[in-house]
Amino acid sequence: MRMRRKHNLDERLEAVRHLIIERTIEDLNMKTSVSQKDYINFKEVFGNDNPVHLEIGCGKGRFIAGLARFRPDVNFIAIEMLSNVIVEACERIDKEGLKNVRFMILRAECLPSYFPPHSVSKIYINFPTPLPQKGYEKQRLTNKKFLEIYKDILAMGGEIYHKTDNRGMFEYTVCELSQNGFALKNLTLDLHNSDCKDNIMTEHEYKYTEMDMPIYKLEAYLPERNK
Amino acid sequence: MRMRRKHNLDERLEAVRHLIIERTIEDLNMKTSVSQKDYINFKEVFGNDNPVHLEIGCGKGRFIAGLARFRPDVNFIAIEMLSNVIVEACERIDKEGLKNVRFMILRAECLPSYFPPHSVSKIYINFPTPLPQKGYEKQRLTNKKFLEIYKDILAMGGEIYHKTDNRGMFEYTVCELSQNGFALKNLTLDLHNSDCKDNIMTEHEYKYTEMDMPIYKLEAYLPERNK
Repeated sequence: MRMRRKHNLDERLEAVRHLIIERTIEDLNMKTSVSQKDYINFKEVFGNDNPVHLEIGCGKGRFIAGLARFRPDVNFIAIEMLSNVIVEACERIDKEGLKNVRFMILRAECLPSYFPPHSVSKIYINFPTPLPQKGYEKQRLTNKKFLEIYKDILAMGGEIYHKTDNRGMFEYTVCELSQNGFALKNLTLDLHNSDCKDNIMTEHEYKYTEMDMPIYKLEAYLPERNK
Repeated sequence: MRMRRKHNLDERLEAVRHLIIERTIEDLNMKTSVSQKDYINFKEVFGNDNPVHLEIGCGKGRFIAGLARFRPDVNFIAIEMLSNVIVEACERIDKEGLKNVRFMILRAECLPSYFPPHSVSKIYINFPTPLPQKGYEKQRLTNKKFLEIYKDILAMGGEIYHKTDNRGMFEYTVCELSQNGFALKNLTLDLHNSDCKDNIMTEHEYKYTEMDMPIYKLEAYLPERNK
């Protein structure tokens, strides 16, 4: 049964291979860091010079599909660790025929190997695993270690967008960002009862909103790159 | 009737005059800024070299009394604009016989005239008026204008403590602090359901907690003064 599912997954991945940035195939083995650089040529990939936005942990791709539809003037790259999840995101984009989205099966730790310095205008971190247990701080996607990676790849005027339903995660993220040189704006402790416009919901967000749980959201930028 | 109340207030203020730092009597007319400097000599006022903590908007003094009892090793100065409110705080401290608290009837704008640069170790801003109306931002006690004043008077390693029940005020404060060089720590979106110890409640806090409303809290510091 397991073999059949695996076989089926390989076939599905093969069918959407044109949406997956090839070099990431090597990363299927989940290396936690890659020492050599193998920068993506965004112009070659997308055929234009549009700004690049990155989603870290795209899940089944509902958010990135909504955003890509809304912003044809932007190139999107979405990364996700799990191939059986990302395949659904790829199939969604393929079905919609969106030309401005590509995927990478990749851990966030490996971003600096493929993304040139200062090449990304926006980074979206939606509903990351909160990992509230002691000792797991370093694995949270807004830990100092990751913020340093985002700083490397963020362009002049670049921004991080973060949403979560998890109070502890949000408290942690606000502190980490402010302690590592980021300034915050458009912060809300109840996104769906604020005057924030143009919000695109993720799968998680739909679920939590239906359960009437508040969604926390913020935007972060590096003041010295916004002067 | 009004005259009698006023007369009564003057008598009450006179009875606690030993707790009010004298030069502030001149400020009863609520000047919004004072150009000349007339620095307080804390050693003269308190008779020791203990660190100085400042509460901005002390109301009836429940918080400052609780803190002063708990921290006899610290000198506290509490400011408040309304003399009919501060008189109650003075009477409370007088009744308890606490020696480490003084009051000033003062607007926060006037702090730099009386507090020497880098003289205050902690600033408490508890449940400030949120002023959510458009055009009132500059009057909020965590507006950039006030943060610059706090920066002037905060000592090396100095910190701001802020609590509020008002979501909009808290969202605003987090953004203003992070945009003006402050880093945040020990931030909680539900103080009474967090593992924060040694919390001293204000009058407002008692009321809102009884109504089961969450209390937001943060601590802010200037990273370059904490190295």
